Amino acid sequence: MRDVFIVGVGAHATGRFMEKPLKALAHAAIAAALEDAGAAPRDVQTAWVGNSLGGLLTGQEGIRGEVALQHSGIVGVPVTNVENACASATTALRGAWLEVASGAADVALAVGMEKMFVGDTARTIAALAADSELELSEMGMQFTSGYAIHPKINIKARMREYGWTPADLAKPAVKNSFNGSLNPLAQHRKRLTIDDVVHSRMVVDPLTLYMCSSISDGAAAALVCSADRAARFSKKPVRIAACVLRSGIYRLPGDTRVDSAQATAQEAYEKAGIGPDDLDVVELHDAMAPAELMLYERLGLCRPGEGPRLIDEGITTLTGRVPVNPSGGLCSRGHPVGATGLLQIAELVWQLRGEAGPRQIARRPKTALAQNQGGLTLGQDSAVYTATILQV
Amino acid sequence: MRDVFIVGVGAHATGRFMEKPLKALAHAAIAAALEDAGAAPRDVQTAWVGNSLGGLLTGQEGIRGEVALQHSGIVGVPVTNVENACASATTALRGAWLEVASGAADVALAVGMEKMFVGDTARTIAALAADSELELSEMGMQFTSGYAIHPKINIKARMREYGWTPADLAKPAVKNSFNGSLNPLAQHRKRLTIDDVVHSRMVVDPLTLYMCSSISDGAAAALVCSADRAARFSKKPVRIAACVLRSGIYRLPGDTRVDSAQATAQEAYEKAGIGPDDLDVVELHDAMAPAELMLYERLGLCRPGEGPRLIDEGITTLTGRVPVNPSGGLCSRGHPVGATGLLQIAELVWQLRGEAGPRQIARRPKTALAQNQGGLTLGQDSAVYTATILQV
Repeated sequence: MRDVFIVGVGAHATGRFMEKPLKALAHAAIAAALEDAGAAPRDVQTAWVGNSLGGLLTGQEGIRGEVALQHSGIVGVPVTNVENACASATTALRGAWLEVASGAADVALAVGMEKMFVGDTARTIAALAADSELELSEMGMQFTSGYAIHPKINIKARMREYGWTPADLAKPAVKNSFNGSLNPLAQHRKRLTIDDVVHSRMVVDPLTLYMCSSISDGAAAALVCSADRAARFSKKPVRIAACVLRSGIYRLPGDTRVDSAQATAQEAYEKAGIGPDDLDVVELHDAMAPAELMLYERLGLCRPGEGPRLIDEGITTLTGRVPVNPSGGLCSRGHPVGATGLLQIAELVWQLRGEAGPRQIARRPKTALAQNQGGLTLGQDSAVYTATILQV
Repeated sequence: MRDVFIVGVGAHATGRFMEKPLKALAHAAIAAALEDAGAAPRDVQTAWVGNSLGGLLTGQEGIRGEVALQHSGIVGVPVTNVENACASATTALRGAWLEVASGAADVALAVGMEKMFVGDTARTIAALAADSELELSEMGMQFTSGYAIHPKINIKARMREYGWTPADLAKPAVKNSFNGSLNPLAQHRKRLTIDDVVHSRMVVDPLTLYMCSSISDGAAAALVCSADRAARFSKKPVRIAACVLRSGIYRLPGDTRVDSAQATAQEAYEKAGIGPDDLDVVELHDAMAPAELMLYERLGLCRPGEGPRLIDEGITTLTGRVPVNPSGGLCSRGHPVGATGLLQIAELVWQLRGEAGPRQIARRPKTALAQNQGGLTLGQDSAVYTATILQV
């Protein structure tokens, strides 16, 4: 397999953009990624477009990517629309990576786009169903309650086992709100205190409002290419050292199987020939703030139960040894489902290039991990995990 | 890039299966493909699932493939959900091909599945929107009328230019209805006469009911692998000699650009190192019967205007030099949108292996073409075309 490099990234801001259709969000991200690389639409030989909710929320069920891309002047090339819930964008990146790694193409575009604000929150929530037949029809429950059950069970178990307090659960949200306050593309830029987070409205015990990511519109894109093409573009290439996708389980307490987030990260480390200690910066999937504490363990950044300590000691803050979610993460930067993975990738590319502005990590990072996931279903093996390692 | 082989195919019958959910259709096809190959679910290292309408029609917007696959015992592997309108299934096959060609996996599964019968035809039709924002909101038209305009303009122009008669337009439907009558998996098995077709209800002038494919449920799957793995499976491997995907235009009369169906086929011929004269059997996208006549030209099977003659002289019938749509094609075999491409592939694999039963082509074919397309939009470059060449 050939080496694959990212030579351009771009993003639309995350937030509420009622006047912008899905393709306008996508176009902004695509144009920015091409400009970043010094590339033109005709340089794109193949395109992969990730989106999760466009069918139910915009009515555009078919050929979402082709419709969006032709607005950006990218026509006549292979276009593949992919969906993998909250991991749709890194699934699109993996497709672009496969094209270049295989030799099928030399230059490929990956796009993630999502429009969640459609003026009807109930419709947005219903579209997030994990197994619609089972959950909506048979169990009469919404995705949010289903989505909340797994982490809730886990978080409650951790609180009992490790003595984590509500203040501990709030720590990632506080840390990430500071990062997000420095990110001009972030949806929520207010700096929060432990008190703000703990005493915000209870959504589902023990998760409060500021511990949860919110509905968001957004888009991001990355241009990838082979080694021999990389020099033609204007930016320093960032190598994709591993690009791993898996389906699997979200492990609950008492389940003896290996957690799939952990297995996916492990596979990525092996493919890149590194270990978690080699990571200089991480973007991870904190759809709810305490998930960051659990993911620290699963990614091998700490031993079980030590998550809050990593933040207390400043290890994962912007100035720490391995900053996590410098963008602000899903709770502050925003979580437009099918765009999130490429928003993570864009942030890491900016950090690896030293272009992250006021939130730039001082000790210039060389190795970065994007951890993205989605699609929890109850007691099933249908969750999606990706782990992408980038190096300069 | 590594050579890629198909070692197993399977399909669920096409038709109206109100009692079966999407995942039951998919499971039947997956189980049949694995059994065909002598493979077990654990042999599948990565899976690609094509579906177009499941979000709007079943409410299952996210992780359709993971939900279906875990019902077939395929868990813990990379799963990529793809969508490309009526070409979704061959887009899934291309993903599986990329995995094996690149070396990312040795054994990959491609699935196409569609459930169109949901008890509300208007909802099914609305889900087929090509550019929902433009067509549904701004122009107030449905996909079917949009879809009909392009071929209708083309067909009317051909009737004027070449003197094609309504009987000429009916010929592919008559030929394919005979083939479909021999296919136990076909949706429509009635043998039609020219008179039946010409005098069936007018849908949109000049297209009559029996010239149009109908709403359908169905699923198909193919197991692909690398050369070194092929011998482990039970069936004679069929090589994927070319696997081409493009977006582009459906060329209307007066448009001087190259038609994208033609360009896609040409690219496939070049990649396989063959020409149209080398084809022994073809499955092509006759969503409406006269499309077969136009595709003969675009695939290089005849000169402009000669389509009806190919059928008159028996060249494309089951006993002819290059049988086209031995399965019955989209009008007789059926057109469950996101499954159609892999139904074509399954038919060609059976033909290449000599396993097609009463519709087996007598002169055992060695080279086959599957031509699949979808997603027309008005005056835009958003149509999807695939061309897949198989060889034994």
